[in-house]
Amino acid sequence: MLRIRGRIWIESENGTFVGYGRIILLERIKKFGSITEAAKSMGMSYRHAWEMIDSMNRQWSVPLVQTSAGGIGGGGTRVTEEGEKVIENFWELYKKFKEFKESELKSLKL
Amino acid sequence: MLRIRGRIWIESENGTFVGYGRIILLERIKKFGSITEAAKSMGMSYRHAWEMIDSMNRQWSVPLVQTSAGGIGGGGTRVTEEGEKVIENFWELYKKFKEFKESELKSLKL
Repeated sequence: MLRIRGRIWIESENGTFVGYGRIILLERIKKFGSITEAAKSMGMSYRHAWEMIDSMNRQWSVPLVQTSAGGIGGGGTRVTEEGEKVIENFWELYKKFKEFKESELKSLKL
Repeated sequence: MLRIRGRIWIESENGTFVGYGRIILLERIKKFGSITEAAKSMGMSYRHAWEMIDSMNRQWSVPLVQTSAGGIGGGGTRVTEEGEKVIENFWELYKKFKEFKESELKSLKL
């Protein structure tokens, strides 16, 4: 019983832009509205999460994650519209990759 | 400038069957007729190369690599016909994966 496995990610000229882990991080930030909570939910240090977000934001023309300071209702961290677009594109790619692996498995002559 | 990158490999129920590194190793064995030379050409220890070959052979019904002892002309290590089939199938998959990445890059909406 064989299985085709793989990993896929998107790079810019400055290295990894988004892969599975970064997309999950974006989704957790969207869910919790907090980098601290998002990182904790993934068993990841705040520092590591922050560095990944910083790396994504620096590689894009507009931020994918935006943090606003205090004020009424307190500050908050949110995923921007552009961030949503990136998440959506990645899952589309991920889904097609899954289909690719399944279809290629059928055409293996082993 | 974005780029889609990835890795792909074939697994059996006992773990990795073949990926890029193992295929290159098979090709080097074919070239040199020797595990020692193949390993050396890849900057890999003999032990590591041997373990990878052993792992592939154990996962398959027939050996992919066969070693014969001395005799006239000395012994030798060779890639079997089945091994050749595995190499060929992997490169076919690898090529299609390359095409997949290129075509998916064009359909990213980023």
